[in-house]
Amino acid sequence: MPRLKLHLAYTGTFFYGWQIQPNKRTVQGCLEKEISKICNIHIRVHGSGRTDTGVHALGQVAHCDIPSNKVNIPWQKALNSLLPEDITVISAKWVNPDFHARFSTTGKEYSYSLWTNPDFVIPQRRPFVWTVGAVDEKKMKEAAEILLGKHDFSAFQNVGTPIKNKVRTIYWIKTETGYFSDEKIWRFSADGFLKQMVRNLISCLVSIGKNNLNLFELQSILDSRERSFAPATAPAKGLCLEQVFY
Amino acid sequence: MPRLKLHLAYTGTFFYGWQIQPNKRTVQGCLEKEISKICNIHIRVHGSGRTDTGVHALGQVAHCDIPSNKVNIPWQKALNSLLPEDITVISAKWVNPDFHARFSTTGKEYSYSLWTNPDFVIPQRRPFVWTVGAVDEKKMKEAAEILLGKHDFSAFQNVGTPIKNKVRTIYWIKTETGYFSDEKIWRFSADGFLKQMVRNLISCLVSIGKNNLNLFELQSILDSRERSFAPATAPAKGLCLEQVFY
Repeated sequence: MPRLKLHLAYTGTFFYGWQIQPNKRTVQGCLEKEISKICNIHIRVHGSGRTDTGVHALGQVAHCDIPSNKVNIPWQKALNSLLPEDITVISAKWVNPDFHARFSTTGKEYSYSLWTNPDFVIPQRRPFVWTVGAVDEKKMKEAAEILLGKHDFSAFQNVGTPIKNKVRTIYWIKTETGYFSDEKIWRFSADGFLKQMVRNLISCLVSIGKNNLNLFELQSILDSRERSFAPATAPAKGLCLEQVFY
Repeated sequence: MPRLKLHLAYTGTFFYGWQIQPNKRTVQGCLEKEISKICNIHIRVHGSGRTDTGVHALGQVAHCDIPSNKVNIPWQKALNSLLPEDITVISAKWVNPDFHARFSTTGKEYSYSLWTNPDFVIPQRRPFVWTVGAVDEKKMKEAAEILLGKHDFSAFQNVGTPIKNKVRTIYWIKTETGYFSDEKIWRFSADGFLKQMVRNLISCLVSIGKNNLNLFELQSILDSRERSFAPATAPAKGLCLEQVFY
């Protein structure tokens, strides 16, 4: 069957994450429902990876195999007219059947948005930011240097599906200012991320920016490979899956 | 009683507009409720003007008179901890009692956001944009020139409280690109706006950008002073009260 590659954006606020679950509203669930309805058979949708409850995406990628008699359907248009308002198909393209949304990935980029004004949060941005107040951005950037490159990131992985290899390579960590100057967007690019790794990394960086953790301690946490030494996981709503690389 | 000036932002999606109404969730209603609770008496809040159901604000201004025994309360902090997540107090300042949020205004700035990609809408922006698809921005800018300056804008006023003087001066109309390149933000600055005037103006500009109206027809509509000649009012959700000038 011809393979369709979907580039998706969604607002995570009202989803129980990506992965299909009985009686829960999930992104994969919504997609499979509409695609299956059009095809008259159940169609499995494979994502590049799961996003947790409340996590947003601008660049999620998925694929699915479409029955040959349904290839002439304008899939992007059809899905965008059927899907709920908090999911959109940015593009839908036919790809070679050896493409796999999950197994072909070579890396990902996530962003994490911090709201840094302690006195107020612009309501329009509240569903997309973690309100942390004033932080020392210079110190946070110094700390980010420690995380770059190839490391065993066990200390930043939350409990989940057991995986053997905890070594990942962070290519770069960049910062930019959002549409509102009080919003600081931290971008992380790596060959892959462990479960809730970005949320654990940003949480450490914020602790450093608030003088609750120093560079030496961060290095020790990384070296320890022990999750319990790192601060609590940052909230889901600041996180966004920006890009998947193939 | 000392007069407090509030600079407010709100997401209009879940409000029946600014103005207090029985059994409806309104911005003025929420503010009066919390301020009155703190003061133990009913406190009237005066806004710079009403915003309609669904209209957003980043720069609404209001004032209220606070009993002398409540002046030491940190008002911004107190209100931001009590108000719902879709209203924020950007600043709270004591002003001279001759300041009036409505009667002292010298002008306002509104923005109206258009989503111009016909194939998809980023869900994160959907509550804040009008999806119009491809538009000829050059033509729209030419049309905007016709609207600049002092005119009787009766053709762009919807039915509401009768007012005598329909003459307003538009100081400037500017465009910029939003955080996403498919979002075009149109900004309107004037000494004042009639009811739903910005939504009627942008609706005309979009009609021009889609070749459903030409410059000559726009001039005729303006000259006619007749509402029924102009296209239907644009949706509330693209509109945002950006600034009030005093």
